[in-house]
Amino acid sequence: MSAKVSRRGFLTAAGGAAAGAVAGAGLVAVAGDDDETPAAPPGTGRVAFDGAHQAGIITPAQDRLHFAAFDVVPGATRADLRELLAAWTGAARRMTAGLPARPLTANPAAPPADTGEAAGLPPARLTVTFGLGPGLFAAERFGLTARRPVRLAPLPALPADELDPARSGGDLAVQACADDPQVAFHAVRNLARIGRGVVVMRWSQLGFGRTSSTSSAQETPRNLMGFKDGTNNLTAEETDELRRHLWAAADEPAWMAGGTYLVARRIRMLIEVWDRASLDDQEATFGRRRASGAPLTGSRERDPVDLAAQGADGPLIPPGAHIRLAAPETNDGIRLLRRGYSFTDGFDAELGQLDAGLFFVSFQRDPQAFVRVQTRLGREDALNEYIKHVGSAVFAVPGGTRPGRPVAEQLFA
Amino acid sequence: MSAKVSRRGFLTAAGGAAAGAVAGAGLVAVAGDDDETPAAPPGTGRVAFDGAHQAGIITPAQDRLHFAAFDVVPGATRADLRELLAAWTGAARRMTAGLPARPLTANPAAPPADTGEAAGLPPARLTVTFGLGPGLFAAERFGLTARRPVRLAPLPALPADELDPARSGGDLAVQACADDPQVAFHAVRNLARIGRGVVVMRWSQLGFGRTSSTSSAQETPRNLMGFKDGTNNLTAEETDELRRHLWAAADEPAWMAGGTYLVARRIRMLIEVWDRASLDDQEATFGRRRASGAPLTGSRERDPVDLAAQGADGPLIPPGAHIRLAAPETNDGIRLLRRGYSFTDGFDAELGQLDAGLFFVSFQRDPQAFVRVQTRLGREDALNEYIKHVGSAVFAVPGGTRPGRPVAEQLFA
Repeated sequence: MSAKVSRRGFLTAAGGAAAGAVAGAGLVAVAGDDDETPAAPPGTGRVAFDGAHQAGIITPAQDRLHFAAFDVVPGATRADLRELLAAWTGAARRMTAGLPARPLTANPAAPPADTGEAAGLPPARLTVTFGLGPGLFAAERFGLTARRPVRLAPLPALPADELDPARSGGDLAVQACADDPQVAFHAVRNLARIGRGVVVMRWSQLGFGRTSSTSSAQETPRNLMGFKDGTNNLTAEETDELRRHLWAAADEPAWMAGGTYLVARRIRMLIEVWDRASLDDQEATFGRRRASGAPLTGSRERDPVDLAAQGADGPLIPPGAHIRLAAPETNDGIRLLRRGYSFTDGFDAELGQLDAGLFFVSFQRDPQAFVRVQTRLGREDALNEYIKHVGSAVFAVPGGTRPGRPVAEQLFA
Repeated sequence: MSAKVSRRGFLTAAGGAAAGAVAGAGLVAVAGDDDETPAAPPGTGRVAFDGAHQAGIITPAQDRLHFAAFDVVPGATRADLRELLAAWTGAARRMTAGLPARPLTANPAAPPADTGEAAGLPPARLTVTFGLGPGLFAAERFGLTARRPVRLAPLPALPADELDPARSGGDLAVQACADDPQVAFHAVRNLARIGRGVVVMRWSQLGFGRTSSTSSAQETPRNLMGFKDGTNNLTAEETDELRRHLWAAADEPAWMAGGTYLVARRIRMLIEVWDRASLDDQEATFGRRRASGAPLTGSRERDPVDLAAQGADGPLIPPGAHIRLAAPETNDGIRLLRRGYSFTDGFDAELGQLDAGLFFVSFQRDPQAFVRVQTRLGREDALNEYIKHVGSAVFAVPGGTRPGRPVAEQLFA
């Protein structure tokens, strides 16, 4: 029934009450209209919330993103944090099923339990993925130091960083992905609302178009430089590789089983500068052909990247080419799962350019994998002439949930 | 063949050359693959660029928007402006047909003629609508004062305005609407690139979800307050009403025949405040039920708005209700065609709130129609407690184009 759920009755008290009862039983099924509801069009269906891993990681990348980082306010207690995560999990489970964030009541003298803008919209493959920032585990905050994930620490300063603290860091992360941006916005907004008094939003980012594929069944999209990048990304189908490169290691605390780490980078593209580069320069910068996406050592997108191939003037894939420096062969076999989105946030009058680029998100077993690759890229990547890393954050991503149970439940056990 | 065009061969020199030849003939048709290409899925097709009116006004509202305002740089001449509009028209005509902005060449030592991020994407119902701001007609600028549209002047200060000059005004407007945000972004970016040296971008706005219907066949969407608004909007099917309220009057200069006026307002919603209001208060503010969209004097969305109906405590639709103050009956019969979009531009740390709201766009025969309605709304609308108008602009919108000819051609004749 995954593609058959709609938000029918979303805003009516009766519909809300029924939905509340369902959620109260710890289920995400919406009863009653299976037989009469036709299969939903592509991109409208429902992604299961519960499972061994959180959804929104290897889920085939949806088209749109709303990402938000929150800080826990001073004075909030460990119990507050625990209750927040439980409330957030319940609301996320409901919203991914196409239900209001909280059961609606019939009391018109109270503020509505859901903000309403997603009423009537299908689940749109919404996923909500939660992450925990390094600050949560600091001594004298919530007594969680002993359960700190082994590999969780603020990212070190990296070459070519030009970070804005207002777009970096955070105690908690919410990554909402959906095929309808209004559904993703609605999820973040309602979680922010539920968290009022315990968390404040630190920054948020809308991504209007996916730039990564997380399944081999998806076509590689183009980024705002007009190129297909990340063709050799980890995908959901590579089970063994995911175990090696993505999912948390055995030495992590028990609550991280099935988890991973999320790195987010707001990468501003200097697209006006890029647009003045010749096609030759652009292709040498990526190490790929623009039209086909093929590496300079092949003619089709998925042809092998032959870093050793020589031409008349040296290596066919130049020393500073992005594809060479990001390749596993150049980085001791390191692979990341990328889940990035293009963004634009209007015109930057100070720079006289569109504020646009790539909101890079990667998931990996160890954030040091990202650090090692980016250290090399930050020093040598020919792309650096055209980009600036202006935001940065890292989060531990707890494993998946059992039906009806909160995320990171074992963290507080 | 409207739904059958793809960007096949978009990035190859051969495809580009062929496309160039087609465009040179003043046609937007893409020859050759009609018979073999299956019909495109909904939302991927093509909207005709040429016609009596510019597309993107009564065209059934697409899902996504990228709007940009530009200023003509000091020193640019009348000939520069004329050439720019011709180049922009040609590029827009090509892009709405799913082609690169300019024909691609086979010279890899030159920057690509198109930025490439829409390669492989369908036309996605792209429309590009051009507007001319009041400043273009100032004395001693381009010698256009004698052909100034009769009703074009900067909007007066309006009650409750809190305008940011950096988000207001502009000499030229480009409204790109599409069902794929990457296609809309690509259009604005390539027009900005083509205009380099003659115009600089002044501001730009991404809209992630439509809030208006411009056809009676479209469902009324919800705004970020969770309400259906604009149910009584002008629609494409009301031919007589469009003639009366939308299309330029007979006393306008000849080049405005088939044209109209565009008003843009960036309306910030104080959604955190709104979310604390009771359902009763919210419904009294709009004068509609949240769940159904029905006026408080009915039970279904399109039931009549009965401003005279009385309840036990006074009028059923309260004196300050948005639906009352915006109603034609309250405004001497004035009607607008609205084409608004929800936006969010991240988190506003200064206010501690999401920077989100409604990018309001209306088209009307006379901007004074907007001024009159907004003067009343700015003074009396119960919504004012929850919104701020922070950006504002007005543009004359020339009539439509003949195949192969530039927009506003008669302005320079």
